[in-house]
Amino acid sequence: MNILLNNRIVPRESFTVDLEDRGFQFGDGIYEVIRIYDGVFFEWEAHLERLVWSAKELMLPLPAAINTLYQNLQLLVKDSKITNGTVYIQVTRGTAPRFHALPEKAEPTLVAYVREMQRPLEQMKKGIKAVTAEDIRWLRVDIKSLNLLGNVLAKQKAVEQGGAEAILIRDGIVTEGSSSNLFAIKDKQCFTHPANHLILNGITRQVVLRLLNDIDLTLQETSFTLDELLEMDEVFITNTGQEVCPVIQIDDFVIRKGTPGVYTRRLQSGFEALLGSVIPS
Amino acid sequence: MNILLNNRIVPRESFTVDLEDRGFQFGDGIYEVIRIYDGVFFEWEAHLERLVWSAKELMLPLPAAINTLYQNLQLLVKDSKITNGTVYIQVTRGTAPRFHALPEKAEPTLVAYVREMQRPLEQMKKGIKAVTAEDIRWLRVDIKSLNLLGNVLAKQKAVEQGGAEAILIRDGIVTEGSSSNLFAIKDKQCFTHPANHLILNGITRQVVLRLLNDIDLTLQETSFTLDELLEMDEVFITNTGQEVCPVIQIDDFVIRKGTPGVYTRRLQSGFEALLGSVIPS
Repeated sequence: MNILLNNRIVPRESFTVDLEDRGFQFGDGIYEVIRIYDGVFFEWEAHLERLVWSAKELMLPLPAAINTLYQNLQLLVKDSKITNGTVYIQVTRGTAPRFHALPEKAEPTLVAYVREMQRPLEQMKKGIKAVTAEDIRWLRVDIKSLNLLGNVLAKQKAVEQGGAEAILIRDGIVTEGSSSNLFAIKDKQCFTHPANHLILNGITRQVVLRLLNDIDLTLQETSFTLDELLEMDEVFITNTGQEVCPVIQIDDFVIRKGTPGVYTRRLQSGFEALLGSVIPS
Repeated sequence: MNILLNNRIVPRESFTVDLEDRGFQFGDGIYEVIRIYDGVFFEWEAHLERLVWSAKELMLPLPAAINTLYQNLQLLVKDSKITNGTVYIQVTRGTAPRFHALPEKAEPTLVAYVREMQRPLEQMKKGIKAVTAEDIRWLRVDIKSLNLLGNVLAKQKAVEQGGAEAILIRDGIVTEGSSSNLFAIKDKQCFTHPANHLILNGITRQVVLRLLNDIDLTLQETSFTLDELLEMDEVFITNTGQEVCPVIQIDDFVIRKGTPGVYTRRLQSGFEALLGSVIPS
């Protein structure tokens, strides 16, 4: 497998990072995952804009202009011969003698690689079980950083309890999933946590917000509790890999008799139509 | 420079880590920093016990028994010819295809290296300025993990404002420093935040707790606010590198006319005496 290392495509085996790369010692870096459908980079501008924003929030200089990066990513995907999958992009701050404050001089390390991935059609059709977990993450999860242990431990809890996702709860408020945004629908209103420092404002989340109007749902970007969530008619998560995915069970509580709801289905259709419009047939 | 890589001493340049080492992608790992005085590992049992504890909390298998690790660290320090410095030890979970939940199979990566360091005698004598910052870290900072961006951003704020440390405040409560524990003294009572999930229970903190009795101070392991802190007679921080270090200014507020207090001095003397007892003369 080849990877993109800064601005060169090199064999994966030739990748090296110094042990004092701050990505390795502090989780001092950011990332993005872009979905590739039939060779097309889905919502790539939004992903790369967010990369730039995350970098700015962490005062992390990006090693390449976005257009150059995009061109290199295209070369990487072409080289990989993978037409359906994801491209993972990570930028760490680079190597400096270990000290918490930002180094005056460090060359950032950009690495990207492609993975094959099929759409999880079964999950999207039948829905998934989710498990609740305390949201113990830091207070800047709006930055797509490499400090992901809170997400890791929550997802692990979900997996151990037979779930496919963890729904995070902070101070009684439902924030999002451990690697997804969470939505709920009741009385033609679609609820989701406001995009502040307590959630990662997902690109698929933003796509769904644009689709709401078309299917006659009103957006309620507001906080809600777990009790309120369990009284909703429909619940679903969104992320780059799972797109719009129904949640049919939360812990032991079955949502809507365990079948995906009609509005969730409509959003999936809307998402499908959007895909159809951007992917050449 | 040579480093310890798992159980072998190898040139630093030969260190490689896969780009999907979870330490690099999730900050999924732990670390310790042990102080070396005249070749002696100070409080090594406490550091390595905490390493074991951090590993357990993250369900991270350690790649070596503690005694073997200690022997290897001694070989590493001997090889380095450094007699006064620190040894940094890091264990990451190892390489696995990127997915948040813990991989079923991954070989942990242990890396350790030695750095020369002199005692910061000037700081310890004159005291330092600290700067307050919001404590935005995750809710398991008791685990000495690699998810350190909250610490990094706080320390950076301190440095930008001419301070040597950031004092972190969560929900109005003073927790600790960005890379230290914080203590304050008033009326023969010594205040510090309880060792729960909101602070890292420093090894030097534990040493200081043992010294309190000898200098006629009563421990008050309890929460306090910034306003309460500013009314204390003496403030100091502790950590492996700075030992017991007076804080003489917090933001624009000068503590005790800007001179280290008598109890802080006594604790420094007590620490010094302890060093004298463990280091062969």
